[in-house]
Amino acid sequence: MDFIKQPQEIENKSFEIIAPHLKNLNLSAEETKIYSRIIHAAGDVEYAPIIKISPDAISAAKNALQSGANIFTDVEMVRTGINKKVLKKFGGEVFCKVADDEIKKIAEREKITRSMAAMRNFGEKLNKSIIAIGNAPTALFEVLRLVEEENISPVVIIGVPVGFVGAADSKLKLAEQNKIPFITVEGTKGGSPIAVAAVNAILYL
Amino acid sequence: MDFIKQPQEIENKSFEIIAPHLKNLNLSAEETKIYSRIIHAAGDVEYAPIIKISPDAISAAKNALQSGANIFTDVEMVRTGINKKVLKKFGGEVFCKVADDEIKKIAEREKITRSMAAMRNFGEKLNKSIIAIGNAPTALFEVLRLVEEENISPVVIIGVPVGFVGAADSKLKLAEQNKIPFITVEGTKGGSPIAVAAVNAILYL
Repeated sequence: MDFIKQPQEIENKSFEIIAPHLKNLNLSAEETKIYSRIIHAAGDVEYAPIIKISPDAISAAKNALQSGANIFTDVEMVRTGINKKVLKKFGGEVFCKVADDEIKKIAEREKITRSMAAMRNFGEKLNKSIIAIGNAPTALFEVLRLVEEENISPVVIIGVPVGFVGAADSKLKLAEQNKIPFITVEGTKGGSPIAVAAVNAILYL
Repeated sequence: MDFIKQPQEIENKSFEIIAPHLKNLNLSAEETKIYSRIIHAAGDVEYAPIIKISPDAISAAKNALQSGANIFTDVEMVRTGINKKVLKKFGGEVFCKVADDEIKKIAEREKITRSMAAMRNFGEKLNKSIIAIGNAPTALFEVLRLVEEENISPVVIIGVPVGFVGAADSKLKLAEQNKIPFITVEGTKGGSPIAVAAVNAILYL
């Protein structure tokens, strides 16, 4: 069987194939890296026109991460995928509470999702952090409520929850607010690999 | 903010939205569940026509898992997403070696990806197992080589690696062989959540 087996060669070849799909979008070099890694992770060039990055999001996230900011995720798959070796070198950590027993109890009592309960529970710890939501629209809605109603102030929200129930609405709400810089995608698509791709792309800048 | 916060309600509503996209595909009740969970995980109804399940794959995977078969994954994100509580009840475990130091050394020495080295290293342990590949085409190519050349015999291969370099080819090769039942998707799309969705859908049957 003849196929490319060397990881760096695979990534280079992949980014080469993706490049023509970005050429009409007037992206900066840093934006190009984030778009490429997202499209690479989804195997789907149709992400190109739906990715939305607010003007100050990349520099804010890069500066924060390189200064040791922590990352808070909605689900364990996002935590798993983030390159913690690089993050740790800068001084940061990844936190996710969705599987905690305490959170499970709160979620059951309040009839909300566990990832929503987890975000609420983090509360002020979200200040000066990077938030990466790859799965649950409810977690993104809750973060936006914390920003609006409780003056919680993360550095950047990477919000790419997925699905047909609330995902598009929660991401539209994220893109329409102007307090917190953001990275998102329009519509129903998204997911853990998309959140991971965005975070790791910034870690590698 | 008004949005659905209750997990079961979210899933039910999502599957309702997906149903019309499946109605012309003549799916069995079990196939419908797997298709629905994959489309739900991707937020992308365009998966409907590209999912391919060999006739005996679902019953074989269900019987094996319910009898305590183990699952081998290419990447940690797939291991993370699989419902290990349900799997453990049946007696099975999930294994992934991609992050092992030993595997890293082999991969560097042989100039192959770590997930490919990990599959080769599992070798005969893959007999009677379920293999779930969500990320790396090289891992799927290696499993198919093990089946062909070394008579390794997993029960079912869930092969949905993603991307522009080898993914489509490796999945085509999986769909064209007839030794091992399989679940796959055509083309460049795929990813860890797709592999996880297929595994968990079968665990919940």
